[in-house]
This record gives sequence, C-alpha cells and structure tokens, in this order.
Amino acid sequence: MGSDLENLGVAAGINLGLATIFIAAYSVAIKMPINTRVYFPALLQRDPSKFKETGKTGLERFMLNLRLLDWLHGALKMPEEELIATAGLDAVVVLRVFFFSMKMLFPMALWGAIVLIPINKTDNNVQQQHAVNPKSSFSAVDQLSLSNVQDRSDRMWAHLLSAYMFAFWAYYCLWKEYEYITRLRLGYMADLQPQPDQFTVLTTEIPKVDAQSSETMSQRVARYFRVQYPDIYFAHNVVINANPLWALVNKRDKTANKVDALRIKMERKPRKGRPMHRTGFLGLRGPKVDSIDFYEKELSQLREEAATESGIIQSSQKRVVNAAFVTFRNRWGAAVAAQTQVSKNPQLWITSWAPEPRDVYWPNLGMSKWHQGLRRLAVGTAVFFLVFFYMVPISLVQSLANLDSLRHIGTPVKEIVDVPVIAGFVSGFLPGLVLKLFLALLPLLLRTMSTFEGHPSTSTIVRQAAIKVYYFQLVNVFFGSILTGSLFEQLRSFVSQPTKLPETLGNAIPTKSSFFITYIMVDGWAGFPAELLRLFPLLLYHLRVALFVVTDKDRENAMNLQRLHYEELLPSLLFYILLGLVYAPIAPLLLPFLLLFLVIGYVVYKNQIINVYERQYESSAGLWPFVANRVIVALLVAQITLLGVLSLKLASKVAPFAVPLPVLTLVYSVWLRDRFEPNFSRYPLESANEKDVIDSVKYPSWDLRDISDAAYTHPALAKGLTLDAAIPSVEELKEQQLVPVKAKYRRASNPASAASTPRTSRAPSPTRNGAHVTTEDELDPGDKV
Amino acid sequence: MGSDLENLGVAAGINLGLATIFIAAYSVAIKMPINTRVYFPALLQRDPSKFKETGKTGLERFMLNLRLLDWLHGALKMPEEELIATAGLDAVVVLRVFFFSMKMLFPMALWGAIVLIPINKTDNNVQQQHAVNPKSSFSAVDQLSLSNVQDRSDRMWAHLLSAYMFAFWAYYCLWKEYEYITRLRLGYMADLQPQPDQFTVLTTEIPKVDAQSSETMSQRVARYFRVQYPDIYFAHNVVINANPLWALVNKRDKTANKVDALRIKMERKPRKGRPMHRTGFLGLRGPKVDSIDFYEKELSQLREEAATESGIIQSSQKRVVNAAFVTFRNRWGAAVAAQTQVSKNPQLWITSWAPEPRDVYWPNLGMSKWHQGLRRLAVGTAVFFLVFFYMVPISLVQSLANLDSLRHIGTPVKEIVDVPVIAGFVSGFLPGLVLKLFLALLPLLLRTMSTFEGHPSTSTIVRQAAIKVYYFQLVNVFFGSILTGSLFEQLRSFVSQPTKLPETLGNAIPTKSSFFITYIMVDGWAGFPAELLRLFPLLLYHLRVALFVVTDKDRENAMNLQRLHYEELLPSLLFYILLGLVYAPIAPLLLPFLLLFLVIGYVVYKNQIINVYERQYESSAGLWPFVANRVIVALLVAQITLLGVLSLKLASKVAPFAVPLPVLTLVYSVWLRDRFEPNFSRYPLESANEKDVIDSVKYPSWDLRDISDAAYTHPALAKGLTLDAAIPSVEELKEQQLVPVKAKYRRASNPASAASTPRTSRAPSPTRNGAHVTTEDELDPGDKV
Repeated sequence: MGSDLENLGVAAGINLGLATIFIAAYSVAIKMPINTRVYFPALLQRDPSKFKETGKTGLERFMLNLRLLDWLHGALKMPEEELIATAGLDAVVVLRVFFFSMKMLFPMALWGAIVLIPINKTDNNVQQQHAVNPKSSFSAVDQLSLSNVQDRSDRMWAHLLSAYMFAFWAYYCLWKEYEYITRLRLGYMADLQPQPDQFTVLTTEIPKVDAQSSETMSQRVARYFRVQYPDIYFAHNVVINANPLWALVNKRDKTANKVDALRIKMERKPRKGRPMHRTGFLGLRGPKVDSIDFYEKELSQLREEAATESGIIQSSQKRVVNAAFVTFRNRWGAAVAAQTQVSKNPQLWITSWAPEPRDVYWPNLGMSKWHQGLRRLAVGTAVFFLVFFYMVPISLVQSLANLDSLRHIGTPVKEIVDVPVIAGFVSGFLPGLVLKLFLALLPLLLRTMSTFEGHPSTSTIVRQAAIKVYYFQLVNVFFGSILTGSLFEQLRSFVSQPTKLPETLGNAIPTKSSFFITYIMVDGWAGFPAELLRLFPLLLYHLRVALFVVTDKDRENAMNLQRLHYEELLPSLLFYILLGLVYAPIAPLLLPFLLLFLVIGYVVYKNQIINVYERQYESSAGLWPFVANRVIVALLVAQITLLGVLSLKLASKVAPFAVPLPVLTLVYSVWLRDRFEPNFSRYPLESANEKDVIDSVKYPSWDLRDISDAAYTHPALAKGLTLDAAIPSVEELKEQQLVPVKAKYRRASNPASAASTPRTSRAPSPTRNGAHVTTEDELDPGDKV
Repeated sequence: MGSDLENLGVAAGINLGLATIFIAAYSVAIKMPINTRVYFPALLQRDPSKFKETGKTGLERFMLNLRLLDWLHGALKMPEEELIATAGLDAVVVLRVFFFSMKMLFPMALWGAIVLIPINKTDNNVQQQHAVNPKSSFSAVDQLSLSNVQDRSDRMWAHLLSAYMFAFWAYYCLWKEYEYITRLRLGYMADLQPQPDQFTVLTTEIPKVDAQSSETMSQRVARYFRVQYPDIYFAHNVVINANPLWALVNKRDKTANKVDALRIKMERKPRKGRPMHRTGFLGLRGPKVDSIDFYEKELSQLREEAATESGIIQSSQKRVVNAAFVTFRNRWGAAVAAQTQVSKNPQLWITSWAPEPRDVYWPNLGMSKWHQGLRRLAVGTAVFFLVFFYMVPISLVQSLANLDSLRHIGTPVKEIVDVPVIAGFVSGFLPGLVLKLFLALLPLLLRTMSTFEGHPSTSTIVRQAAIKVYYFQLVNVFFGSILTGSLFEQLRSFVSQPTKLPETLGNAIPTKSSFFITYIMVDGWAGFPAELLRLFPLLLYHLRVALFVVTDKDRENAMNLQRLHYEELLPSLLFYILLGLVYAPIAPLLLPFLLLFLVIGYVVYKNQIINVYERQYESSAGLWPFVANRVIVALLVAQITLLGVLSLKLASKVAPFAVPLPVLTLVYSVWLRDRFEPNFSRYPLESANEKDVIDSVKYPSWDLRDISDAAYTHPALAKGLTLDAAIPSVEELKEQQLVPVKAKYRRASNPASAASTPRTSRAPSPTRNGAHVTTEDELDPGDKV
C-alpha cells in the first residue's frame, strides 16, 4: 500500500540530496580563483578588471567570501534592465519563460490542491478496481488523480470547470507575456545604438550576370536598387564566398600557434633540444623532422595559399555569389525594402531584414532557393525518420523504469532491486538519467541538420533546431513514454484513425503521472544544480590547463566559452510546460514538483546567464514566438487528453462540453499570432521612423558611412586581406590602430565587435582596399568587383 | 447488351437537338431590333451609335443579315487584345480557362483513345463479372474503362504511366498558363491610363478618436501618414457611412420616377382623369388618394430626410468610420504603403491595396476586424452545414436518375419509362436538369453570405463566393453523386479514417462515368446554347416593356444589365476540369464529350462577353489564382482516385508507384504559388516604378489632383449632396457641366466613371464642398470633418 508514494519519496530524497551536494560544491568552487575561467567566463570577458584589482592571495579571498550563497543573492538581485544590458534580450527571454510558466502554473497548482485533490481523494475508484482485480497495481498517487473518480460520476464537472478556468488563465498569461515581450523587444531595439543591421537588407536570388555582360555583380546591385529604391538606397556589400579562404586562415592561425607553443616550450626547457616529431600516422610513423622548421614551412605555404585565394577574391568575379547586403539611408528605407516585393518575378531579388553582422552564417549565403528547398525536403524526411525510429533508447529506458522487469533478470538483481533505496534509485533516478543522456546527443545532430538547411543566420538555425528538438521530445518522450508499441505503428494508426487520439491519450496519460514526476525531479532538482557546477567543463578545463596550455591563445581556447544552447533548454522547458498543462486537471500532484523545478531552474539559469554564457549574437527575443506557439500546442494536447479521459470515464454529460475547448484554443491562437507575431519578423515603419528621428538628435555626429564599410564582410576577409601587404606584424597593425592586439582573435570570429567600435576600425581599413563595399556616392561605372 | 451506350446515344441526340434549336432560335432572334436590349446590352452601352445609324426598318435589316451564323464569325474573329480592351481582363481570363482546359485535356483524350481504350477493351473483366453474377448490370461503357481490366493485370502499368504523363502535362500547361496570365496582368496594368487606385491604399482599423480629443478622423489620418510616409503621402479620403443616405436617395429616385410615370400616363390618356390609388395593403384597402399628390408629398419628405442626413454627414463626425483611402504621390509610394506594416500594433492602421473605385463595396467599409472575424466564423459554420446537409435535392436527383426506381412507382410509369426515347430522356436529361435547377439557387445564397463576411470589394466577395460554390459542387455533386449514404456520415467516416478515402473513391468513381457523361451533355451541349438564347431575360424584358415601361428609366431597368457571374461559371468549369482529370486515366471515353462541351462553352461565352455582360469592375485577372489552385485540387483528387482504383484492383506491383504522384503535385503547387501568386496580391515596386516613369512621359499634363478628389467618395454623396443647394434641376446641373444627363444614373451606381473622366467632373465638385477630401497641401489644423 502506497508503495509508489514511498518510491517517489525516495527519489525526491535522492534528488534533493544531489542538488544540495551540487550547490554546496559550486558555492565552494566558485570561490577559488583557479576556477574563474570556468565559472565566470562571460563576466571575465565583459569586465576583466573585476578579477584583477584585489592584491589578495587566493586563500585570503576564499576566506573573505565565506558567505557561501552570496552568488545566489547576487544573481537574484540583478534587475531585468541590467540583465538585458549585459546579457542581451535573448537570454532574458529564457528567464521570462521560466517566470511565465511559474505564473501560469502556480494558481493551477493551488486550485488543484484545494479543490481537485480533495474531490479525487474522497472517491474510491482505485480501491474498487484493486478489489475487483487484485493483480492490478494499487497506486496511492492515482488516488489523488482523476483515476480515482468513478465512471459516470458527476464529480467530473469539477474537472471540466477547472479545465476551462485553466484555459482562460493560460490565455490571459500568454497574452500578457506576449505583450510584455513585444514591448521589451520594441523598446530594446529603440534603445540600441546605431547599428548596421538597422539600415540593411539582405537580398538573395540576384539574377546571374550574363557571361557576355561586362557588368559586375556589384554594379548590377547598385543599378537595380538605385532605380527601385530611389533616394533611400545608400550602399551595398556584395557577398563573397570567402569560405575557402576562411578555412586557410583558420589553419594558418592554428599552425602559427603551434609554432609559438613549440618556441615557448623550447625556451622554458632549453636542455631538451629542438622538438622533433614524425610526419606519419598520429606522429608514430614516417621520418622524423624538426618540428619548428616543419610547421614554419607549412605556415609559409598556408600564407601563400591564402594570399593566392585572396588575390582571386580581389581581382575576379569568381567568388562573388548572388547575394548582397544593401544598406539604406535610414531605417525607414531598410524597413520598406525588407517588407516589399521589388521584382516582377517574386522569386528574384528577394529581400529580407538583414541579421546582425555577428549573427550572419556566412557559409549559407548565396545558396539558391531551389537548393535550399531540396535540402529542406531532405532534412525534413530525415527528421521524420529520426523522430519516429529513435525509439530504441527510449524503450530501453522504459524497460529499466520497470522494477518488475529488472526483478525478472535473476535472483541477485532481484535482491538488490528489492532494497528500498535502490528500488527508489532504479525507478526514480536511473531511467531519467539514461533518457537524458540519449537526448543530450540529439540537439547537436539536429543543429547540424538545421545548418544544412541553408538559413542565413545563426539565430534562425538555432530556432529551426529548437523546433525539431521540441517535436522530437513531444513524440519520443511524451508519446513514447505513454504509448505502447512502436511509435511508427502508433503514427500509422493515428493517421488512419485520427479520432482515436483522445481515447488513446486519455487511456495512457493518467497512469503515467508518477513516471513524469520522477522525470521532473531528476532533470530539474538534480540536473539544474549540476548545470551550475559545470562538472564536465570544470574537469576539462583543468585537464587542458595541466596538459596542453602553452600560449595565451591555448588558455583562451581551454576556457571554451559557450553560448546558451537555446535549442536544448527551451524545448525541455516547453516539454515541462506541456506536462504541467496536461496533468493540471488530471493529476494535480505533479504541479508542485514542477514548480520547484521551475524555481531552481530560474535561479540557476539567471546565475549562469550573468556569469557563464557568451552572447554570440542577438536576435532581440526572436525565439519567443516559437515558445508561444508551442504553449498553444501544449494547451491543445492537454485539452484533447482531458476529452479522452472524460470519454473513457463515460461522462456522457460532461465530455461533450470539453469539445469546444480545443476549438477555442485554435481561435485564440489565430488571434494571438495575428496580433503579435508580425512584430517579430518585421520592423514596423512607425518604430523605424521614431528611431531615425530620435537617433539623429541622440547621436548627432554619427555618420552611416562609419559603419557601412566593414560591417557585412566575411570574417575571413578582414583577416585574409591583411596578408597581401607583406604580412604586417602585430606591432605594425597596432601602430595603424587597426586591431587592438587583444581583440585580434575575437574580431575575427566576431565581425560585429568591429562594427560596434567603428571609429577605431576605419581609416586604412583593409576591407576598403578589397573594394567590395560600394557606397552610392563613390560608385562609378568603371568600378571593379 | 449495350443498353447504356444506347441511352447515351439518345441523350446525346436530345441534347444536340436542343442545342441546334437554341442556336437557330438565337440566330434569328438577334436579328430583330426589338431584342437589341436583350442580346446586345453591353455593346449598346459601349457604343450606342452602332444601333442607330441605319435608317432601315427592322424587316429590311432582318432580311439583309440573313447569314444566320455571322454572330459566330464575329465572336470568333475578335482578337484577345481587342477583347481585353472592350470587356476587360477578368472576362478574358474566363475564356482563357476554357482554352486552358481544352489545351490540357485534348492530348489526354487523344492518348486515351489511341492507347488506353484499346487496352481496356481487349480485356474482359466486365463480361466475366456479368457471367459470375448475372444480376450485375453489364455496361458497354464500362468495357472501355479501367473496370474492364482484370484484377492484378499488368495492363495497369499503362494506366500508371498515363497518370504520370497526364500529371506532367498538366503541370506544364498550368505553369505556362499562369505565366501567360501573369504577363497579361502586368501588361494590362502597365497599359492602363492613370487611375486613382494605382495611387491609393485602403487603410482600416484606424484607432478611434478620443471623445476629449479635438482631432478629427481626417486630421488624424493626415498626421499619421504624413509622418510615417514622409515625402510620398499626398491626400486622403475618410470613409463616410453614407449607407442611410444611399437608401434615402435610392428611394427618392424611385418615387421621382413614379411621379414622372404617373404624369406621362396622364398626358397620354387625359380622359382617364388623375390617377388614384388606395394607401392600404397592396393598394386594395384604405382611403383613396390622388396618386400624383401622394407621391409628390412623399418625394418632398424624402428630399428633406436626405437633406437632414447629408447635413449630419457634413457638419459632424457621426458618420465618419475608421477607414480611409490614402493617396500617394506616386505608384511606388502606394505599392510601398500597401505592402508594409506601419503601426507597432499590427492590428491597427492595416493597409491594403485599394480596390478600383467602382469595385469598392461601400457598406462593408469600416467594419472592424473583430466583427469580420465573427462574421466569417458564422458564415463558415453556415456554409459547412449547407454543404453537408443540402443533399436532399441531390438524393432526389439520384433517385430520378435511376430508371429502376421509377419503374417501381407503378405500371403506367413503368410503361412510359420503357419507351426508349423516354428512358433516354429520363436517364439522360432529367436528372441533370433538376440538379442544375437546384444548383442555380445556390450562388445567390453563397454570394449573399460572402457579402455578409465584410470584404471591402465586390471582386473579393465574388471570389469568396466562387470558392464556396466550388466546394459545394465538389462535395455535393462530385462526392454526393458517387458515394452512397448521407454526406455527413461520409464526412464522419473520412475524418475518423482518412486513409479509407482512396479506396472509397476508387470503388465508386469508375461506375459513374455514364452518369457524368450525361451530366456534361445536359449542362454544356444544351445548357450553353440556352445561355446564348437568354430565354428567361428575353421573356422578362418583353413582358416588362409591354406592361410596366413608361419612363426612359423604366426601359433601362427592364434591360436588366448583368455582369458575368464568375462565381457560377468558374466553379462549374472547374468541376468539369475535375471530371476530366479524374476520368482521363480511368474512363477516357468521357473526355471527347467534355471537349465538345468546352468548345461550345468557349464560343458561347466569347459571344456573350462581347455583347451581353456589363463590366462592373475590373480586378485584372484577380480570379486566376483561385482557378489555378482548384486545378491543383482536381489533380490531387484524380491521383488519389487512381491510387484507390489500382489498390482495389489488387495491382500490388503498380499501386505503390502511384503514391508519389499526389506528393509531387503538392510540391509542385508550393512552387507554383511561390512563383506566381504574389503578383496577384501585390504590386511589385519594379512595375510601379516603370509605370511612374513611363506615364510621366506619356501623360505629361496629367495631374494627380484631378482624380484624387472625387474618386473614392461614397456614391450616395455625389447624389445626396446636390440636394443641399436648393435642389438644382437637371438643366442647372447641365450648365454646371457637372453630370451629363444621360450619365446621371450610371454615375450614381458607378462612381468610377466619374473618375475615368476626371476633367469634366472637377471644378465646382459637390464632393469638394463636402470637405471629406483633403490633400496635403490644403490641410490645416483647423480643418473640419
């Protein structure tokens, strides 16, 4: 009796214990200066001075900050505006999603505890079922759920009423949150400094230049846009396929670093003599060579190749692709150009709002629509099969979760499993962990697939990956956990008999609440503090520092600065929102567990966003519509499930009244999209105008020409072209004020940092020499490239 | 043996006979001058001189033009460009649809006759079935169809191959036609004279003016657009709800006409004394009054009311609705404004390309999106029920079509029915006719519903009605004819088991080919010539002339000038295209009948378009995307049907190869829409620019101010406001050169004719006095309205 409650208790104990251990360990570990690069990489990057000022030794500082949970206080007290300013709006939206879910689910949990659980508990369906069929498991958790209400009972009116209340509350929350985030987004964009993407449009599918025509791509773009957008066209950057150059430049830098490292090693331990290595397989075979000579030779060869490649880029049309960034005189012009169809053939000269320079995914630019279409079809098919045939690991988890099946393995296993703590561990921790590990591999795969689809910006790639991950989780974790038999079989039966869906859901969902409660505990209660501790990056960092780090660059690489993986976090979060909404009217016991999960997650991620993750690009809350649309999906699934449960419980009076709910949700979603979504894909002219006017007052001396030069240039060109002029040394560059030494590598991987400090990167800019930037004022018909 | 072939022959004979009679009657009737207003109303309206020049008597002219079929020659010889110039592009698109279907179906028919029919005929499945079960009807028509091929036969490879060939041929035809019509559309719009709609955008959902604010709607619009579209904003017309005034004015005109008629009657027959009538129910009860006095009193009262109403319009904000027509300095500006989101709230200040002035459906302007949404939901639900429960008449037709059921009525009926000619008539003519009659009522109803949905232009209303009619026909005529049981039951079974659809179709379709052949013969072979003869309008006109016509206006009204009812013709045509595509691989015998139908239809409608239909508005081929999308639907239905037939015939080797066909069609349709559809909803900036430049050369003295005044004014205002100035007589108006007398009524129903002759309607324009037109140059903050 109550064995499942006991198991739940054990699982809760284990997970809370783990959480405490992780948090304690983290609280200690962050005090050690040696871990600064693991726990504060983002802060270190933003404000290095913070970590240098104190002259105290590590131990002194450690003793000084003995208040172990001050990090918690620090994280929680930071207001939203400051967070937006430091970490960007994209990161803040993630926290808003945590906050939104808490706000939406807390009243539901309260209502469930006060009204629904008493109603369920005072009936006795579970007991009766057990009495009729003693073999069926008797579950104390089920006693608190709708399962305990007898068939045909009028008590189900309460659940129906709750479902309506929950739905309207969810509509309200979603509406308010969408409104709030839209305001944040518009406000954020209005407050931004003048930036190139505000003035720029990406145009693709530029018709190919005839072989006979003497017109270059650049001339063609200038001519077309000057005619079609008279007065507002300003300049353009033709996109150049610098990907081969990019590869060469990267290889060159790695080799240069290797040479540096070898030299430093030799200086430190001169008696070891010049380092040698073998050139063959893994350095184990082949002739022995002098390493420094060898790599220097390789380096000079790479430099030559890069010079040749950059020569091709400069002197011919070979590397010009049919895409261009077109800059307009004002934001209004760019907003107009991004939203209008310019060509008579709508498949040519397609314009879209340009992503931020650092958000541009260069390798995908210039891919034709046809090509993209084919790739998307291929990826779509692949994802379909992945989603529906990735169930092998999931079913493995299912069999692990089942204590009975473990007991059947043999006597020793049975004895071990029968120890209550281990039973709790097996049913409460192991399945979730295994499932989690399998799922951890997935986002990388799906991100690669999304990249392959040919989207022009990283933020779009991440969004597409997030959508794929979400559907994967929905099908595999949610449906995979609650349905029996192969997923593909299930799909077939749903396609041929879609009306059976509510029944199937209604049959399976109520019995699975304890499984999902343990899943929540493992993933959130213990998982989020583990994310805080960053055990794996911590070990990796120290291992690297101990073994490989020689040059400064090595140390920087070892830090392994990472962005927040939205495509992993958001789908998981959305999956939990789905669980919450589905179980709110059916088994409200799940909600308190979920709420604790959300609280822990909120704190952990707020801390990590401040200290750990690098902000690689900013899409200004561009992921929010994805979240909102998935919440709608969750509502639909929840409402269809309730309909199924009610029908199965033969509530013939109540069930028909549940039918309008999903319809209502669909109507609501149409309104919601119509009201808010356009602002996440377009720049309203009103906003563009306002910013044009205000910024002309706020930044009176600011000139568009300052940024339009280098902003939209392939990062390889900024690096590669410096090679032409007799390979200037870093000192020379420093004198030219071209690149601050520290920023050299960052700039290369991040062209926008150049744009945000336009004045330093101007004067003798190498990209200017490359002549692929053409402002209208300068262009003349003889212009090359 | 072959009884169904005989029946088909009889039906063909009857219908061809009828066709001959109709055509002969028409050929004679059009020679009679008395019928001019029935057979040449459009021509009469365009070019009245054509019908007056000859001094000959009616008989002389009749004898002169004894070549009876010269109308046919006249219709056929008119080239497309001339037709576009006289009848407009919308009408020409209808002819293109006839032409396109012929082009698409003719090679299919040929291939069917040469390849498929021999393959079918040389098998013997039908005979065997008959031998096994003698009760089953033996059909000679089925012997020519796929039904005659034995189960599992390898002959079905031929049908599969044909389906692929047909699909690719259909793709090609559709692509070429879409391209051609897009070219026509862009060319047509490029050749148009300067017109107000080229410069104008309709903006709706203007935020309500506060009660405290002293700003009028007009000032608000001017302020907003001048800021958001600087440089290109030119002027605007606030929309005024003149619908009450409109009703009063119409009633006033009717009463005035009544008074005129009474006076003329009295003059003609003075001895009869002053006409009297009773005021009570139907003029049968109540006190007797002097009619002229009575109506004159009513007339003056109506004039007063109209004056009061127009006073309200002029002096207050009460009748101003939150919509406006905004005119821009050039076409480029209007194209930009129509395509961009201007407000931060995408549900406010919604802009869309303005319909032509004569296309504007005034009563719907100013309806809020919410209101429209609710209405569309209501209409959608109503249409759903209409579509699925309108089957009573259809099943009646079904039972009529069945000779056996008629025989069961009783001996006398049986004897009559067994006469071969009558049997042919019953099975070949009657069912189609009854079906047709029921269907004739429908477009009116669906048009009313579409009007109720709140679309701002007549062309959109017609398009929406056409979509509804199409789906009605698809479900009721197509599925209703081939499926057994109630349609709603069928729908339920399809929703719960969608994969059963191909099987059900495959089961029913092949056996219904003779039914549809007779349907085609009745509708096309006899129906189109009946359309030519216009028997009903002919009788109605002469009846009216004989009984009611007194004033000139009466005669004009009796003419009953009608537009081409696209919402009836196009769905029918598309239904036949569906039949053609479905039966092309299955029962190719149907195609020759269909082709003859198309030829007759093409000739008839070309003639009618030239002579009969009034062009009430021009949407520049705006209906074509609807047609193209429905052809795609037809292809899908055809391919799914074939899949079903092949599966039912156990062609386990062949059937799987039919699965990719619908997928291919879907992919193709995505491409097709993407490639062409945007040009039917947007004005590409390239085109707008070109026209701006060319027209500035072509019409150098043309000034935008000439048209922007009166173009977008509620038709009632042009009429109603003339009442203020002491009700000027027609002579006075003539002197003012305001309205040509003849054109007075036409202008009222057709505000665009005023716009297309801008110079005459300018100077002391009454609408200018109404001050609801505001150009930017004139507006000052104290401006009223």
